Amino acid sequence: MYIYKSKTKQRTCSSSPFISAASFAHFSRFSKYLLAARVMVGSSIELEATMSSNGSLVNGKALDRMTAAEELAFDPTEVVSEAVPRVVESTGVDGEITREIVLGRNVHTTCFEVTEPDADDESTGDKDAYMASVLARYRKTLVERTKHHLGYPYNLDFDYGALGQLQHFSINNLGDPFIESNYGVHSRQFEVGVLDWFARLWEIEKDDYWGYITNCGTEGNLHGILVGREVFPDGVLYGSKESHYSVFKAARMYRMECVKVGTLITGEIDCTDFKAKLLQNKNKPAIINVNIGTTVKGAVDDLDLVIQTLEECGFSHDRFYIHCDGALFGLMMPFVKKAPKVSFKKPIGSVSVSGHKFVGCPMPCGVQLTRMKHINALSSNVEYLASRDATIMGSRNGHAPIFLWYTLNRKGYKGFQKEVQKCLRNAHYLKDRLRDAGISAMLNELSSTVVFERPRDEEFVRRWQLACERNMAHIVVMPNVTIEKLDYFLNELIQGRSIWYKDEKVRPPCLETDIGSHNCSCALHK
Amino acid sequence: MYIYKSKTKQRTCSSSPFISAASFAHFSRFSKYLLAARVMVGSSIELEATMSSNGSLVNGKALDRMTAAEELAFDPTEVVSEAVPRVVESTGVDGEITREIVLGRNVHTTCFEVTEPDADDESTGDKDAYMASVLARYRKTLVERTKHHLGYPYNLDFDYGALGQLQHFSINNLGDPFIESNYGVHSRQFEVGVLDWFARLWEIEKDDYWGYITNCGTEGNLHGILVGREVFPDGVLYGSKESHYSVFKAARMYRMECVKVGTLITGEIDCTDFKAKLLQNKNKPAIINVNIGTTVKGAVDDLDLVIQTLEECGFSHDRFYIHCDGALFGLMMPFVKKAPKVSFKKPIGSVSVSGHKFVGCPMPCGVQLTRMKHINALSSNVEYLASRDATIMGSRNGHAPIFLWYTLNRKGYKGFQKEVQKCLRNAHYLKDRLRDAGISAMLNELSSTVVFERPRDEEFVRRWQLACERNMAHIVVMPNVTIEKLDYFLNELIQGRSIWYKDEKVRPPCLETDIGSHNCSCALHK
Repeated sequence: MYIYKSKTKQRTCSSSPFISAASFAHFSRFSKYLLAARVMVGSSIELEATMSSNGSLVNGKALDRMTAAEELAFDPTEVVSEAVPRVVESTGVDGEITREIVLGRNVHTTCFEVTEPDADDESTGDKDAYMASVLARYRKTLVERTKHHLGYPYNLDFDYGALGQLQHFSINNLGDPFIESNYGVHSRQFEVGVLDWFARLWEIEKDDYWGYITNCGTEGNLHGILVGREVFPDGVLYGSKESHYSVFKAARMYRMECVKVGTLITGEIDCTDFKAKLLQNKNKPAIINVNIGTTVKGAVDDLDLVIQTLEECGFSHDRFYIHCDGALFGLMMPFVKKAPKVSFKKPIGSVSVSGHKFVGCPMPCGVQLTRMKHINALSSNVEYLASRDATIMGSRNGHAPIFLWYTLNRKGYKGFQKEVQKCLRNAHYLKDRLRDAGISAMLNELSSTVVFERPRDEEFVRRWQLACERNMAHIVVMPNVTIEKLDYFLNELIQGRSIWYKDEKVRPPCLETDIGSHNCSCALHK
Repeated sequence: MYIYKSKTKQRTCSSSPFISAASFAHFSRFSKYLLAARVMVGSSIELEATMSSNGSLVNGKALDRMTAAEELAFDPTEVVSEAVPRVVESTGVDGEITREIVLGRNVHTTCFEVTEPDADDESTGDKDAYMASVLARYRKTLVERTKHHLGYPYNLDFDYGALGQLQHFSINNLGDPFIESNYGVHSRQFEVGVLDWFARLWEIEKDDYWGYITNCGTEGNLHGILVGREVFPDGVLYGSKESHYSVFKAARMYRMECVKVGTLITGEIDCTDFKAKLLQNKNKPAIINVNIGTTVKGAVDDLDLVIQTLEECGFSHDRFYIHCDGALFGLMMPFVKKAPKVSFKKPIGSVSVSGHKFVGCPMPCGVQLTRMKHINALSSNVEYLASRDATIMGSRNGHAPIFLWYTLNRKGYKGFQKEVQKCLRNAHYLKDRLRDAGISAMLNELSSTVVFERPRDEEFVRRWQLACERNMAHIVVMPNVTIEKLDYFLNELIQGRSIWYKDEKVRPPCLETDIGSHNCSCALHK
C-alpha cells in the first residue's frame, strides 16, 4: 500500500476548507441544503465544535439520517453510509506531527454533495440561491488562491472575456484535426492554425508534421512515447530520473523496457551515464525522452549532446527516436539565446508542450507535434486505430484550441519573447534576493525555476502553493509573477525563518545533495 | 497508407468553410489580416475564381510572399511554404465523384492562421477588430451547426451562464481527486460530489470506490482496461466487434491479447460466440468490455448473460474483470425499466460514462469509477505510478466537474428519469414515422438510437451531421431533440428521397445485413 506522508507542525485546518464552520452559520436560510456541504477530515473537528451545541449536527450523524430520508425517494434498498477517512497522526522525532493519508480510503476533505432538488424548488428558488452562494464563495477562494500562487508553472494571467460567448456550445474536435468529421460543432480551423504556429516555431514544414491539441502535458508524453514504440516495437525507453513521472507511467502502460539514466546536480541528464546504459543495450533501438525543462529544477537536457552520445555509441538515425518533453520550456527555449534549439531539423521524432503553462489557459491542454511519416507508419495498421484517428483521446476539447489561438494571435512570437525575458529577469532577481538573505538557492542558466530551501512551515508552503521535494521547494517564475509579488513572498519567508530558526536548536536544512554545496547556505556550507 | 474515402455527388464547397469567398470581401477593412484565413482544399477553387481578377491572390501564391516577408522579423532562415493538400478525385461507376483524402498530407480544409501582431495594432485596434469578427462569424456557425445536429449523442441543451465567472481561472485537478495537492486552484470538492452521485447510481459505497472525472469516454475505457490488465497481467481482452474503437486501441497500446466477439443483428454481444471463444482460452483470466450502448446501434450488451456465460465456462469471480463502457447509456439505463442493471453489486470491475453526452457539457468529459481494492493493487506498485497518481492524465480540467455538479444538482435523479423517458418516447416516434414513410429503420428496445437507411446525398448527411456506417445512418435522440426538430428532419428526408429515387434507376439500399430483413424496407424486403 502506498503511503503519502505530509509533515505538518500543529496542522491547522483553516487552510483549505471552502466552507468553514463559521460560514456554515450564514447558510441558515438555505437550511435544507446545509447537508450539501460535507466537511470532513480535519475540518470536521471545527464543525463538531461549533455545531454540536445546538445538537443538529454532531460528527456528521445528523447528515446520515437526512441523507437516508432523501434517498427513500430514489431507491429504498440503497443507503450509502458516510465515508470516514482514515488519518493517522503520530509525533515524529523532532516534535513534528506526521500526518499520513492512507491511499485505500477516499479522503473526502471537503465535498459539495449533489442533492436531489425538492418539488417546490422552482417556486422557492432555494436551490438556485444555494448554488449561487456556493459558487460565489468558491469564486472568492479561487481569487485568493490565484493571488497566492508561486509553485506551479501556470501562467494565471489571462483574459478570455471575448471567448465567454462560446461557452454555450459543446465544441468537440473528434479525432484527427486534419480529417473532416460530420460533427459540425468543432474548432479544427483554430486548432490547425495553432499547430501551424508551433510547426514554424519548431521548424517543420506544414506537410511534414502531424499533431493535435492534447488535454495536457502527460497526453503529449504518452503520445510521443507511443509513436516511438510503434516505430521501434522492441526499442528500449531511456529517460533521466528527473523526467516527469508520466514517462515511467508510459513505460509501464506500454509494456516497454525502461532504463533510468542518472542526472547532474543541475537536473540535466548525465550523458556519461547515458552512454554506459546505451552500450549495455546496443542491440536494441533507443527511444529517448529528453526533458526541455524538468519538473523540479527546470533543467534542460542538452539535446545536441544526447544526439552526439547516441551517434558515438553507434546508433544511426534510423535506430533511435527522440521525444522532447517541453512541458513548460518548450515554448520558452526558442526565445532564449544560447539555449539548445528544439528543432525538427535535428533528428527528433516529436515535441510536446503544455498550453496552460506558459501561454495560460483556463483548463489544462497541450500541443503535440510529430513527423507525418511516423503517423503514416502508425496509421498503416488500420486495425490498431480501428478508425482514422491517431490521437489518444478521440473526443477532444474544442475550446482549448480557441484559447490558444486567441493568445498566440494577441502576443505573437515577439510578445512571447518579451515575456520570456521578463520571467528570466525576475527569476534572477528572486535567486539573488534569496542568496542575499542567506537562503540556499539555485537557478539553472536557461530556466525560470528557482529551487530553494524548503520552508519549514507546511502552512506557509500551502499558502504559497509551493511544490516540494525532499529539502527543496521551487518557484516557477511565470509572466504573472511580478517583482512586487516576489517581494511580498520574500518578506514573508524571511519573517517566517526568523521564527522557525529563532532558537538555534533547529537549523535550516542542508541542500548539498539537492543543489550542490556551492548553492547551499546551510551552517556547514555557507 | 490509410485512405479515407468520402463519396460525394457534385460536391459543393459551401457546406463548411467558415470564411467563404464572398465573406472575404467584407473583410477588406482588415486587409492586412486577410492572410489569416487560409481557405484550402475545395474552397480554394472558389477563392481563386473570385480573387484572381484583381491579381492579389492567385492560387495562394501571394500568401506565400507575404508570409515570408512577415517571417523576416522572426527568423530569416526559416520560410514555411504553403501546404498543398492532395485531393484525388475520380469518377466512380455510377457517375459519382469519389473524393479521397489521403492521410499522409495535412488537410488544411479551413484554417484560421495565427499572425504576428503589428507594432501599431494597439493603437489602430485592427487586430482586435479582426479577431472579434472571426469569433462573431464562428459563433454564428456554431449556432447554425448546433441547430442542425442529430447524429452524435451530445445533449446540446444546457445553460451554464452562472458558471461564466469561473472562466478566468486556471482550474486544474492535478492527480488523484482524493489526495490533497498544494495547487490551490482546483475543484476537487465538486469532483468528489459528482463521483459520490454516480457511486450511488451504480450502487457502491463511498469507501469502496475510487474514480475521477476524465477527459472523455475513451479515457474511461483506457483506464478501465488498464486496471483490468494490472489485476490480470496475462488476461485476454474480449470485446464485441461493435465495441467503441478505443477498446481495440487500448489492446494495442497495452500489448494485450485481444479477442473480438461476434454480435447479434441488434448489435448486442453474441454470447454463444463469446462462450466458444472463452473456452479456447480457458487457461487465461478474462477481461471483458461490456457495451452499455454501442456507438452505432445503441445496443446494450446483456451484462447478466455475460456473467452467466463466464460462470458456465468455469471462470470464478476472481478470474475475470468486467469493464462497462457506458459512454451514453450508462446514465440512461438506470432509469429504464427492464434494463439490465449496471451495479457494483454484480461482479464488475469498473464503469465509465461520458459527461458531455446525456448530461451535456461544453467540452468532452466523463466519469470513471472502479473498486478501491483494484486501485490499491495498482498503487502498491509505486514504480508504476512514480507518484500518488492513479489517473491516466495527471493534469485534469477542473471546469468539467463544476459543469457536471451544476447539472446534476439542478436536475437530480428525477430530472434525468424524465429526460430519459422523453428521449425514448421521441425515439419511438421517429422510428414509427420512418417506417410509415417506407424507410428501413431499427430501434433497440432499451435505446434512443434510431438506425435507418443512409441518405443518398452526402450534403444532406453533412447538413444534419449524421454518423454513417455502411448503408446505415443513425440519429441519437437526446434531450435537446424535440418532436418539432424530428418533423423538420423527416420532411427534408422524405423530400430528398423523392428526388434521389425519382427515376427508378437508383433504388434505396438494402439493410438486411445491417439491421435484419424484418427492419428493412428495400424493394426486396418491404
